Amino acid sequence: MVQTYRAAILIIGNEILSGRTQDTNTSWIATKLSERGIELFEVRVVPDIEDRIITAVNELRGRVDYLFTTGGIGPTHDDITSATMAKLFQRDLALNPQARTMLLNHYKAESELTPARLRMAHIPQGARLIPNPISGAPGFQIENVYVMAGVPSIMKCMLDHILPELKGGDPILCNSVTFDLAESVIAEELGELQKIHPQVSIGSYPYLRAGEVGVSIVLRSPDNDPLHRASLDVINMIERSGGKIHAASLQSAGPRT
Amino acid sequence: MVQTYRAAILIIGNEILSGRTQDTNTSWIATKLSERGIELFEVRVVPDIEDRIITAVNELRGRVDYLFTTGGIGPTHDDITSATMAKLFQRDLALNPQARTMLLNHYKAESELTPARLRMAHIPQGARLIPNPISGAPGFQIENVYVMAGVPSIMKCMLDHILPELKGGDPILCNSVTFDLAESVIAEELGELQKIHPQVSIGSYPYLRAGEVGVSIVLRSPDNDPLHRASLDVINMIERSGGKIHAASLQSAGPRT
Repeated sequence: MVQTYRAAILIIGNEILSGRTQDTNTSWIATKLSERGIELFEVRVVPDIEDRIITAVNELRGRVDYLFTTGGIGPTHDDITSATMAKLFQRDLALNPQARTMLLNHYKAESELTPARLRMAHIPQGARLIPNPISGAPGFQIENVYVMAGVPSIMKCMLDHILPELKGGDPILCNSVTFDLAESVIAEELGELQKIHPQVSIGSYPYLRAGEVGVSIVLRSPDNDPLHRASLDVINMIERSGGKIHAASLQSAGPRT
Repeated sequence: MVQTYRAAILIIGNEILSGRTQDTNTSWIATKLSERGIELFEVRVVPDIEDRIITAVNELRGRVDYLFTTGGIGPTHDDITSATMAKLFQRDLALNPQARTMLLNHYKAESELTPARLRMAHIPQGARLIPNPISGAPGFQIENVYVMAGVPSIMKCMLDHILPELKGGDPILCNSVTFDLAESVIAEELGELQKIHPQVSIGSYPYLRAGEVGVSIVLRSPDNDPLHRASLDVINMIERSGGKIHAASLQSAGPRT
């Protein structure tokens, strides 16, 4: 039995729920996790409200190996993630000397360490810091919960620090084929192909672009050979059905003959 | 006491969790709900797995007035949302004559109603259909759960059908001011302004663009006058702090003098 690793993402932010900001952190983190062979189990978006954050963290952290949160660790009154995590894990929220040094290195002078900025150096006790070379204020890790900034460029930087130490399974290989048929034309045969290739996850995603219908079929598996065979079957099916392939991307490789 | 209305969104789709597809349905629905005075309570993304969908729907539908789902109602083997909803609500999944007529109107000929296409006319019994003028196959509503397509253009069309019949509160007015200071410069004073204006939700969103730091402050309230006063206070604060305002958008209006 291959060990699988699971993660969840908790996006903390009123700005996502109001529709004002388009979340892009999810797709970035999801892609990086996939490359590391870590399955993304669930994503949730909750507002900057203490009990909503606590409920979501508690519901998710027990179900996954890694929980990533984004948002709410800045210097303003609406940044409540650090204090909430301290409460949740029953730890004091205290000035972390190492975090203070990180801020000092960023702001260069003691006089720049205003109360608002020092707020960002208050970290739940015993947490491990996640460096932030962009704006100084660190994220942190407690148990399997990784608390990151919401600003995408800072989040990406923090994630780059975290990723190398995560345990993952085999990377999941992904092939995709995009073609010009309506989904309903290939639906039945595709269902049969899914039954023939149970080791491969076959997804079908219809699209409508400028009045043209088409489908992207996405095949995913950690195992090269079954993935490759299933992909060739899908390509044959499309050609037999009279479809024209617009794009194909194969991470799997054919058998050496 | 003003009645408030709440909604949640459940995105059903492996393609979002794999990182392959950037979800844009959330921000679209969120914006439309906000305009209707409906608060978005939570968003979840789960895979196309029956028990995961059932758990999420059951956890969310009791907490909100409206639950919107997107994804998984197409003709292929991985489209399991309709069958899952039938199971969850303990109803039969049966060919719906009205849905069949919708498909016939779209595909024009009986001979085009293949088993794969007719799969999309199988709807939990007693559900109310949501028309889909784009590709024929309808969504549906059971109790407070609205099941929509995942393809954004189709989802938008379905949502347009649903929105007029939803009960909402007063539309939430939203002002925003974007300026060139670091968030930590205004953090303390902004916290004071939040205390002075408890009827207004004040959010602070830092950004980094091409090496420039700045902040967008977003003020939200259903009440014009408090919102307007708070927004003027924020603008004064920015100017006093030496900030340059790049953009301001005010939905509130000043008092008539």
